Amino acid sequence: MSFLDKLASSQRARDSIICVGLDPEPDLIPGSLGRGPQAALRFLRRIIRATSDDACCYKPNLAFFERYGSAAFDVLGLTLQAIPDDIPVILDAKRGDVPNTAKAYADALFDSFHADAVTVAPYLGMDSIAPFATDGRYALVLARTSNPGARDLQDLMVDGRPLYERVVSACVGAFPADRTGFVVGATYPEEARRLRELAPDRLFLMPGVGAQGGDLATALRAAFDASGAGVLPSASRSVIFASTGDDFERAAADAARALRDAANAARSTVTGRT
Amino acid sequence: MSFLDKLASSQRARDSIICVGLDPEPDLIPGSLGRGPQAALRFLRRIIRATSDDACCYKPNLAFFERYGSAAFDVLGLTLQAIPDDIPVILDAKRGDVPNTAKAYADALFDSFHADAVTVAPYLGMDSIAPFATDGRYALVLARTSNPGARDLQDLMVDGRPLYERVVSACVGAFPADRTGFVVGATYPEEARRLRELAPDRLFLMPGVGAQGGDLATALRAAFDASGAGVLPSASRSVIFASTGDDFERAAADAARALRDAANAARSTVTGRT
Repeated sequence: MSFLDKLASSQRARDSIICVGLDPEPDLIPGSLGRGPQAALRFLRRIIRATSDDACCYKPNLAFFERYGSAAFDVLGLTLQAIPDDIPVILDAKRGDVPNTAKAYADALFDSFHADAVTVAPYLGMDSIAPFATDGRYALVLARTSNPGARDLQDLMVDGRPLYERVVSACVGAFPADRTGFVVGATYPEEARRLRELAPDRLFLMPGVGAQGGDLATALRAAFDASGAGVLPSASRSVIFASTGDDFERAAADAARALRDAANAARSTVTGRT
Repeated sequence: MSFLDKLASSQRARDSIICVGLDPEPDLIPGSLGRGPQAALRFLRRIIRATSDDACCYKPNLAFFERYGSAAFDVLGLTLQAIPDDIPVILDAKRGDVPNTAKAYADALFDSFHADAVTVAPYLGMDSIAPFATDGRYALVLARTSNPGARDLQDLMVDGRPLYERVVSACVGAFPADRTGFVVGATYPEEARRLRELAPDRLFLMPGVGAQGGDLATALRAAFDASGAGVLPSASRSVIFASTGDDFERAAADAARALRDAANAARSTVTGRT
């Protein structure tokens, strides 16, 4: 099943549009679970069990797995086994390399780890994205990120338009909607609104949302497509580390549920449905 | 020891300025070594033994390790063990993420795998590069890459200058020369010449050189600094897969030696020394 079909099905089954980021930061994992890669695995398996009624998608960021050195990809593989089969997985890897090498990255993430979608960086151009956007694969291309330094390159003006708009236009021209969407930070609703005009039929993965309904609603309303869809808000720390004590499972479940409800409320103000 | 000091020492010990890329493409590894991650490890350990008199630096590209799935980082770690201690290692990872996540990538590559330098992508801005360019670390920032698609973003004009020049200028302003250099493809000597003017004191890692003396000489002469230094030409396939038969070690040794000699000859035309 394609990523977008699997996502739509998972969203309907859970009445949820939120994605939960799986970023096992060693210093935040409850000490009672032990230390090292085994603790990360135990932690993530419990987080997944606690949140899989409310997360329509999971997004492991590979950086926090790589932090475990030689065990990195083993922990990643075992974590992915714990995710219910009907929930799509975005591997947040932000890879980008020359075509032959990009294909090796894409093969690794889609074939070895069965990713449903992968985040990719655009600096090397369209031929570096292509291996992630072919053969039933799906690429989420970085457009406007949420960090302060994003302005250093992404906001540079090219022929009167910021670079990130050029990235979106180029990808829309190069790849079909069922193979490519964009990463658009939640912290810039005006930028998201403009990108929605440039890419009316694309999915926007929107990291950087907390459990705060106000900011979330503003960001979502700016980015929804005409039918109140097309946005996948994603939260990581605010859900999985909602508590770093022994009540972490309950706290994560509550945070995921609150985020799901806030996103649904924002959606209802666009669609008129509740 | 800093990356640049270790590199200079290794260059003098071997009278060589060439880097060999370690890209274990499964289809090109001699079948007599078996298959899978163990074959990659056997292959790379022999390649290292065959070339370590002529390679002043090694550059494993992580994509080809990740291709081995759960075993990826274990094979990487065991490969690195085979590299003589006095030869610096560039982990070619092209990572880039928001600051907190970029730090996790940098910690993984520098602390867990003891990289001497790491390649990074600039699209997320200076704060995404900073964790790779601090505390005795060294970042090689993608400037102008050698793939055809590089033009899609890197050549876009910003205030009358191509984007990749903006990247170089911004990094030169943000990070000192002992912590940051650039990746400059060998296929664009004119661009390399211009970047040398913008960054006279920086190391340029120059992938995309084959064993062909002519192209190599043109690229090196364009990119050398005033003293005939500052360039690290890198070849991967043309060395390690010089033969894919059972004579692969001899063929790789010969190719590395030929590339070393060609680079030294190009250098002597700049410095006047032989």
